[in-house]
Amino acid sequence: MSIKIGILGYGNLGRGVEAAVKMNDDMELVGVYTRRDPDGLKIRTEGVPVLPALALEDGKEDIDVLVICGGSATDLPGMTPHYAAMYNVIDSFDTHANIPTHYAKVDEAAKQGGKTAVISAGWDPGMFSINRVYSDSILPNGQAYTFWGKGVSQGHSDAVRRIEGVKDARQYTIPVEKALDAVRSGANPELTTREKHTRECFVVAEDGADKAVIEEAIKTMPNYFADYDTTVHFITAEEMARDHSGLPHGGSVIHSGISSDGTKHVIEYSLKLDSNPEFTGSVLIACARAAYRMNSEGKSGAVTILDIAPSYMSPRSPEELRAHFL
Amino acid sequence: MSIKIGILGYGNLGRGVEAAVKMNDDMELVGVYTRRDPDGLKIRTEGVPVLPALALEDGKEDIDVLVICGGSATDLPGMTPHYAAMYNVIDSFDTHANIPTHYAKVDEAAKQGGKTAVISAGWDPGMFSINRVYSDSILPNGQAYTFWGKGVSQGHSDAVRRIEGVKDARQYTIPVEKALDAVRSGANPELTTREKHTRECFVVAEDGADKAVIEEAIKTMPNYFADYDTTVHFITAEEMARDHSGLPHGGSVIHSGISSDGTKHVIEYSLKLDSNPEFTGSVLIACARAAYRMNSEGKSGAVTILDIAPSYMSPRSPEELRAHFL
Repeated sequence: MSIKIGILGYGNLGRGVEAAVKMNDDMELVGVYTRRDPDGLKIRTEGVPVLPALALEDGKEDIDVLVICGGSATDLPGMTPHYAAMYNVIDSFDTHANIPTHYAKVDEAAKQGGKTAVISAGWDPGMFSINRVYSDSILPNGQAYTFWGKGVSQGHSDAVRRIEGVKDARQYTIPVEKALDAVRSGANPELTTREKHTRECFVVAEDGADKAVIEEAIKTMPNYFADYDTTVHFITAEEMARDHSGLPHGGSVIHSGISSDGTKHVIEYSLKLDSNPEFTGSVLIACARAAYRMNSEGKSGAVTILDIAPSYMSPRSPEELRAHFL
Repeated sequence: MSIKIGILGYGNLGRGVEAAVKMNDDMELVGVYTRRDPDGLKIRTEGVPVLPALALEDGKEDIDVLVICGGSATDLPGMTPHYAAMYNVIDSFDTHANIPTHYAKVDEAAKQGGKTAVISAGWDPGMFSINRVYSDSILPNGQAYTFWGKGVSQGHSDAVRRIEGVKDARQYTIPVEKALDAVRSGANPELTTREKHTRECFVVAEDGADKAVIEEAIKTMPNYFADYDTTVHFITAEEMARDHSGLPHGGSVIHSGISSDGTKHVIEYSLKLDSNPEFTGSVLIACARAAYRMNSEGKSGAVTILDIAPSYMSPRSPEELRAHFL
């Protein structure tokens, strides 16, 4: 019997979840829910209905886990608690500073509904968080560093697109090799924001726009670029389509610590992802499996990926895992 | 209130566990137990008693978790089930083929005693196992590769020492860079044993021993060396003491898989360890914390590190983890 998955929201992440369901034999996509007009939406899985989000409202849709694919800024803070009262849910809420508040709201709703909710799943927060916690638990006398990239930051790309005269933009976050090497050596360096990452922008300017003004506006933008060494390249719309249509990403969590005076260890977890939304979707689907199981065992409320044992994310039996993966 | 740790067996691993306890404020070493003469044993933690292993027999020692530091070949198969009936225990049983049998025996004993036992903890089996399971769960359409080294293999060093004319020996396992590069590229290559690792031996020969005969005996030794490209260096006892007294190790688990046609992702977990026994001891101590908690919550029986949520290994509260590590 398959785990019945519903997807709410069909943007990049929703399509990533859809792709992930196809890779897992114990999963079945039973519906894509949208707040737009369902008739206008063509999905990639044949035979699966596209339904209005309203269909979820009575809590009676026949789905085991609802994967909520919305944005962290305005969608998830309302949506996840709302649906967690009716369905087992997964989200990828990634506004780090607001996680405790989000957790509390979702936890209350899910407990009232007797449902299990996994919040903030993906790779960061998500797999990177897991690795930060394991490393800190094993080598408490140490320091962790997180590097992102090389990859496309959608938030930074959007920020550039909002500048006057910009038609399209793509921003890559790039870790500084020298900083990576220093951390991997176990030297535990102090690194400023500027020393850890650089930013590279590819911009299609509107006809007649002043490129020097655009470049200056990017490089001095507070929070997004002012604290970084930023490079700006102006390219054509054709070049953008040809060379920058993917959403690759990745990064590393590196923890270096000691187990006794002078005895050093370096732990590194790194990801090289062709598609940020498809990998994130793959993590969400593994969490959906865990949520389904935890709920079947009577667990209700909110959890994060830190509260899920690795074996709960696997389709394999405990016996098989012990015999072949341990 | 600290978690009271007992250590049974005071070899390299026992000393590694002792070092790890010192790094954790919520842990306290309350006794080292030995099957040798306790009077002959000097440990590194002041004020902690060294006791005969027999003292454990009535099951009344005031310890929360007993970390059993014995060998997998002859010690642990008997010791872990024996003590699991009386104490929460941790072991590092690493004979992969025998894990299911070991698990069954320990599980039965621990359940009878109402205790929690974590078996096969460390880094492989252990942290590497966790990463094999996570990656397989996230990208089921993929392949995992485990590389070991560069590091000292104690089993292989021992095998060389048993050859006639060998006074001392150290064997390093070394991953082949070309194989690592191929795997990291996501090419999913088929690799033979010989293509993945090489072996390098440093040997102190006895006076008058025939070095050519020793070298031939090493290179043709079945299981240990015959399937590998092996290099043998003859050195002096002084060089051995100066250059090869440490027990460094490490390695990588690399999983490469797809989330849809042509969309590839590479996940890598790697360790660079100055001291294999101290790092292993550090993992065992984090598992001891988890065992203590799981037992406090009423869980009894055997588990592996695959059954432990990351947050159970951490000394930090769930609130702190969500706020600062997620």
